[in-house]
Amino acid sequence: MKKKEIIVGVDIGGTNTALGLIDYDCNLLVEKNFDTKSEKGIDAYVECLSQHVNGILKEYLSTHELKGIGIAAPNVNSLTGIIENSVNLKWKNVNLSELIKKYFNVPVKMINDANAAALGEQSAGSAKGMKNFIVLTLGTGLGSGIVVDGNLIYGQNGQAGELGHVSVKSNGRKCNCGNFGCLETYISANGIRRTVFDLISNYNEETELKNISFNNLTSKYISELALINDPIALKSFNFTGEILGKALSNVAAHFDPEAIILAGGLAESGDLLLKPTRFYFEKYLLDIYKDKIQILKSTLQNGRAAVMGAGNFILQELKKNPQSENVLSMKKG
Amino acid sequence: MKKKEIIVGVDIGGTNTALGLIDYDCNLLVEKNFDTKSEKGIDAYVECLSQHVNGILKEYLSTHELKGIGIAAPNVNSLTGIIENSVNLKWKNVNLSELIKKYFNVPVKMINDANAAALGEQSAGSAKGMKNFIVLTLGTGLGSGIVVDGNLIYGQNGQAGELGHVSVKSNGRKCNCGNFGCLETYISANGIRRTVFDLISNYNEETELKNISFNNLTSKYISELALINDPIALKSFNFTGEILGKALSNVAAHFDPEAIILAGGLAESGDLLLKPTRFYFEKYLLDIYKDKIQILKSTLQNGRAAVMGAGNFILQELKKNPQSENVLSMKKG
Repeated sequence: MKKKEIIVGVDIGGTNTALGLIDYDCNLLVEKNFDTKSEKGIDAYVECLSQHVNGILKEYLSTHELKGIGIAAPNVNSLTGIIENSVNLKWKNVNLSELIKKYFNVPVKMINDANAAALGEQSAGSAKGMKNFIVLTLGTGLGSGIVVDGNLIYGQNGQAGELGHVSVKSNGRKCNCGNFGCLETYISANGIRRTVFDLISNYNEETELKNISFNNLTSKYISELALINDPIALKSFNFTGEILGKALSNVAAHFDPEAIILAGGLAESGDLLLKPTRFYFEKYLLDIYKDKIQILKSTLQNGRAAVMGAGNFILQELKKNPQSENVLSMKKG
Repeated sequence: MKKKEIIVGVDIGGTNTALGLIDYDCNLLVEKNFDTKSEKGIDAYVECLSQHVNGILKEYLSTHELKGIGIAAPNVNSLTGIIENSVNLKWKNVNLSELIKKYFNVPVKMINDANAAALGEQSAGSAKGMKNFIVLTLGTGLGSGIVVDGNLIYGQNGQAGELGHVSVKSNGRKCNCGNFGCLETYISANGIRRTVFDLISNYNEETELKNISFNNLTSKYISELALINDPIALKSFNFTGEILGKALSNVAAHFDPEAIILAGGLAESGDLLLKPTRFYFEKYLLDIYKDKIQILKSTLQNGRAAVMGAGNFILQELKKNPQSENVLSMKKG
């Protein structure tokens, strides 16, 4: 009997690595998580990753055949596949796919994590069947993956889609990038914490949020308080939605997309964020786009989009070049 | 002897229509202009246009064969080819290509004028050989055409690339679209006139610009005064360059392009606009893009880009479908 073809999708985060076994119809067969611990060095990491990949493969190998591995990570240059100067991973300019190929004799390809999230939404999430859409990942920062006419856009140097660093406010909040007023200083798990502290400084309503330190505050806790009508928590979502809705009306004027999809921790707040975002989006949108562009929440479980997308990324390559796996793995790494 | 294949490119503006005869190597053989006079109705216009096309064709027909006509116009929906509610043309929802086909038995295709300008720069101007670039046409308003990975982007509803309506200032200048602070209220021939009047109201330097009415003021005159160091004229270009440079640094974070090309009347001011624009662009640009993205002036004669681009647009279609001219003309108009 011919073995069923499968691939592995991996999403490397600063704290956690997630991986999954995916079939050629984009079904997730099994998934697994482990601590990234990048401070232990790249060789230790690759060893650990390959053990986990073998772990989930073991019970499938009699009936399935591994055809490729797709890996999502922060700060991957989409043209070279190199992880460049990541803040959250303690490696510099690492060619991870070459290292992994020593353990697995299949094509391995790297993809930027926000781009992987976009492919994940396209293959298994909110963007199924769409050809023009944008995915924002609202985690510690704000990442974005942009699909135009069915394909991810990479740009001239592999760095397209840095929407987290679009400036939305002159003389706004200081950003890690050195500029002021970048979108991610407002629209991210960290951004809404900054908003809460700004609101506490400017208003005098009573709020549970006065009992918690900045470092202990999470966007999940702000959501929980907003659901029981904490005034500052509610204001913080309205403020966040206004900035996001307005910013997305500008993004729409670039791409005329079918949808903009919100993923990541802050998006888990659901309607608390979506309702004001949609309201201000439509308010500021150019007439020709009104009522034509959806703002959606990812339908994938938080964290799964990039695993699915990394898998889909290598799958697309394999389907394009079914006879040339070695050429593929030589050419692009 | 086999006749040489040629096409006609047309650019319909509110005041003036330009057309040219173009060979398959993108050489402009002859060009011609006439008054659009759209208020006389669409049938009169089509009759007039066909006379002018026949006029320039006449002396070539013994040795050349017309293969297609490409037409650029404002407010063309790129997916349907229909001119929708144009402010400057007195026609509503006109299917111009169908009307023109009654006069010429060749494929006719419509394209948005800013998109045509982008194709013109790609085939014969500053973007030759580039695959990722953006063209801004700085006329009465601000139009834009965006090329990603070699192809114009159209978006879900054919309306991508409305960069003139990206908001760059909260509570900024009122725009014709109804919003406030749109880029074209600052960066256009009309925008710099508004800037001059704002500067006169806020500063007290002596300037020749105090002797001219708003309606008589042109961006060309502001350029002339800046070249002889008129303080308000100089300030107006610096102010314009700061807003444009900052806005383009945001555009770069979407597309990671190779170049952004400025065309149209205001771009004729050359270094007066380019120098401050480049300075502020680099200043606000995210580190990963610094020194990698060019800000260029169109190298085509003002007004010629859209004629060349409209011609190139039909040419690309003909080259894609050399045997199916009728299918093409039936399918897309």
